[in-house]
Amino acid sequence: MSNPFSRNLTMLTDFYEITMANGYFCENMGEAEASFDIFFRRPPDNGGFAIMAGLDQVIDYLENLHFSESDIEFLRSTGIFSERFLDYLANFKFCCDVWAVPEGMPIFPSEPIVTVKGPMIQAQFVETALLLTVSHQTLIATKSNRIKRAANGRAVMEFGARRAQGYDGAVYGARAAYIGGCDSTSCVTAGKMFDIPVSGTMAHSWVQMFQNEYDAFEAYARNYPDGCVLLIDTYNVLKSGLPNAIKVFDNVLAPMGKRPLGVRIDSGDITYLSKKIRKVLDEAGYPDCKIVASNSLDEYIIRDMLGQGARIDSFGVGERLITSSLSPVLGGVYKLSAVWDDGGNMIPKIKLSENVEKITIPAFKKVWRLYDRESGKAIADVITHFDEEIDDTKPYEIFDPEHTWKRKTVTDFYAKVITARVFERGKCVYPRYTVAQLHDYCREQTETLWDEVRRFENPHSYYVDLSQKLWDTKQKLLSEHK
Amino acid sequence: MSNPFSRNLTMLTDFYEITMANGYFCENMGEAEASFDIFFRRPPDNGGFAIMAGLDQVIDYLENLHFSESDIEFLRSTGIFSERFLDYLANFKFCCDVWAVPEGMPIFPSEPIVTVKGPMIQAQFVETALLLTVSHQTLIATKSNRIKRAANGRAVMEFGARRAQGYDGAVYGARAAYIGGCDSTSCVTAGKMFDIPVSGTMAHSWVQMFQNEYDAFEAYARNYPDGCVLLIDTYNVLKSGLPNAIKVFDNVLAPMGKRPLGVRIDSGDITYLSKKIRKVLDEAGYPDCKIVASNSLDEYIIRDMLGQGARIDSFGVGERLITSSLSPVLGGVYKLSAVWDDGGNMIPKIKLSENVEKITIPAFKKVWRLYDRESGKAIADVITHFDEEIDDTKPYEIFDPEHTWKRKTVTDFYAKVITARVFERGKCVYPRYTVAQLHDYCREQTETLWDEVRRFENPHSYYVDLSQKLWDTKQKLLSEHK
Repeated sequence: MSNPFSRNLTMLTDFYEITMANGYFCENMGEAEASFDIFFRRPPDNGGFAIMAGLDQVIDYLENLHFSESDIEFLRSTGIFSERFLDYLANFKFCCDVWAVPEGMPIFPSEPIVTVKGPMIQAQFVETALLLTVSHQTLIATKSNRIKRAANGRAVMEFGARRAQGYDGAVYGARAAYIGGCDSTSCVTAGKMFDIPVSGTMAHSWVQMFQNEYDAFEAYARNYPDGCVLLIDTYNVLKSGLPNAIKVFDNVLAPMGKRPLGVRIDSGDITYLSKKIRKVLDEAGYPDCKIVASNSLDEYIIRDMLGQGARIDSFGVGERLITSSLSPVLGGVYKLSAVWDDGGNMIPKIKLSENVEKITIPAFKKVWRLYDRESGKAIADVITHFDEEIDDTKPYEIFDPEHTWKRKTVTDFYAKVITARVFERGKCVYPRYTVAQLHDYCREQTETLWDEVRRFENPHSYYVDLSQKLWDTKQKLLSEHK
Repeated sequence: MSNPFSRNLTMLTDFYEITMANGYFCENMGEAEASFDIFFRRPPDNGGFAIMAGLDQVIDYLENLHFSESDIEFLRSTGIFSERFLDYLANFKFCCDVWAVPEGMPIFPSEPIVTVKGPMIQAQFVETALLLTVSHQTLIATKSNRIKRAANGRAVMEFGARRAQGYDGAVYGARAAYIGGCDSTSCVTAGKMFDIPVSGTMAHSWVQMFQNEYDAFEAYARNYPDGCVLLIDTYNVLKSGLPNAIKVFDNVLAPMGKRPLGVRIDSGDITYLSKKIRKVLDEAGYPDCKIVASNSLDEYIIRDMLGQGARIDSFGVGERLITSSLSPVLGGVYKLSAVWDDGGNMIPKIKLSENVEKITIPAFKKVWRLYDRESGKAIADVITHFDEEIDDTKPYEIFDPEHTWKRKTVTDFYAKVITARVFERGKCVYPRYTVAQLHDYCREQTETLWDEVRRFENPHSYYVDLSQKLWDTKQKLLSEHK
């Protein structure tokens, strides 16, 4: 906990988590076991999937869970909690079991991406912070993954700090963006905390501070001969910025034996300008000088620009990435799935709704991913009871849980449980990965999806099915509630 | 600094702020004075104005600005900064002047809402964190103000923590929402840090934890007889939830001499249900029992519900408020406005653009608001050179800076400078207000706007004009750049 962004977030919770905790405590129900799942209903931007992120911060949160004296004092001041309950909170120690999908893994609607099982008070209490952490980072990792795919192999730099929704939005957003696919961040705190490559050169104000554009470029090149990227759109890209940049490359860098790194444009018709710039740079003897573009970019604009032949080597992406502005909320939910009776029997719980898609999947569960042995591609996810096994040495029949006549027998596959154990009785048993590892893992895992699932427009709905046994459990509960 | 959300945010900056700082330092330009303005170009949600927020956190940030040893070590590790510059950073002490519009004040496009003047390195360096802080909180305060106005006098509770973009998004978002008009928050940390009233009762999981809905309500009422709000939509509002709630009011609360506080609905056709519920509650002898509604609400849905006669007393508003989801970015910018020469003469600076609305207003400035003496309503804002005065004892002519033939002579008005001094040579000289004071101030100040400016659809464009002298300065620079 050596940095200012690691905090005790225990009180970052909805007040009702505490009123409910007190209620369970007073009713002597608090120690009964319950399990909850986090899942989401729709991927952002009408995409085919999301990218899991935020687990490392979930671990930080759970490991640091405790009420300080001043927290207790604050709760006392509300006048609605007994001293007995406040004592309980003062001695609160997290002792649940937790499972989660690894960060960087593609995830799909309805499937549990985090499961918490333990004493009812505790398993309920962590709802707000867990949802907040996972929904935020998953949202940004997903957006980053989309943008990086649109860039089709070109570099993407995350530039969003100034437009983020709060400091954590910038810092953990940069983390999630790097996991999802971005190559670097402009945010120095994120670079320092997570060892993400940092990038950044100059603002328009740099150019304005000097007597003229040439002087500004000259000073920059002299000070940064090794990473010289010049911003050429302060006055006029083709008439002023580009010629001045080339003069500086010739007059300052060449005598030092240095090559320019790039030029950046942040306004105007970037597609058109990039083609002109490329031509001029090539003719001037700088075919290796990269062209960097920024200015309200997202996956759709990048795809269009490249489709029209833009000659851009690297994209700086800001607000539309760091806020996922076209789809700024991942509607993650945290739903009760089971309680255990005194005899240790699991009693599955379902939440009904007039809206069919809002009906939850009951029971204590885990998630399997089936991969095709030959291609390595993911075929389907199957949610099962926690104690079920899928035998991948035999053919396995999957079926659509809504339209059960849609069936398919899968052969030549291997099955992998994708929900890993993270906490055992309150103790973290999960490795801490570097974000560089997660960045690579995400790239690998995204490759396991078919193009049909990855496309932006009308992606194929990846199968997320229930095992027969789990489907039967759900039907039984539904008919009981009729 | 007694809480975990107050941090040293010095490194929360774009890397280019540091490369530029180093550049100015190496060029011996760092101590020359410069001024920068924050402004935005369009209010969120196509509204007529925004609500200023975040200044208190700007003060926190600037007062705590310093590079720690580990920050210096990190910067050294990039290999691009000299030891002389790293020494400079290690001894960095903020000594700029800062002016800002008070929190809670309505603000308009193009006008400087924060101005920083001081040594070039410093005034440039704070860009990222200042924009991030002010843009985020202003965005959420503005959304909250809209939602509160749509609720037309009814209570609005901010419920967004779980869907916020990061922890600060939840906590400072709750702060901004309260300043903008909300009456309470569900976020316990925000309640504790800022003394905002906290609210919250139960989740659906509470109801599911018990054998049946009646038992769940009964336990809740027994434990919370004084603030009993029951969530009645877990199974079926009219057939189960409402009858069970009334039974509990009769059987549990009445014998204790207590009245119920309310019932909450979080799904279904809330308008229809609220009318039915009102009738049943009234007939059962609970006309004082309030109806609370939640479920993806925003100003448009609330306005429609009330327009259709919904009988709702209190709204719980979540993700659409805490992320301002329909308009999740306030595009605040931080632009150079002037530099000072060695003789102390201010040299105004302008940023050109092919896009006319992106051309900046040059010079070191302040902002006046003109109020009608009789009605107290705001007539126009006028941006002037910093050393100009507006004499409100005489008629004053304002004119549209784009269409200068549109002129109007204002009489019987008083003029107030709305940009207040916040820092003097690095020392904070501004009072720290409680959020309750800012909440009240915002309500008062919003009242000074005409209804035409406040409406949601096609609001009247409030006048933001330039003084003749400032307009002349801008024209002169524009013609010089031709």
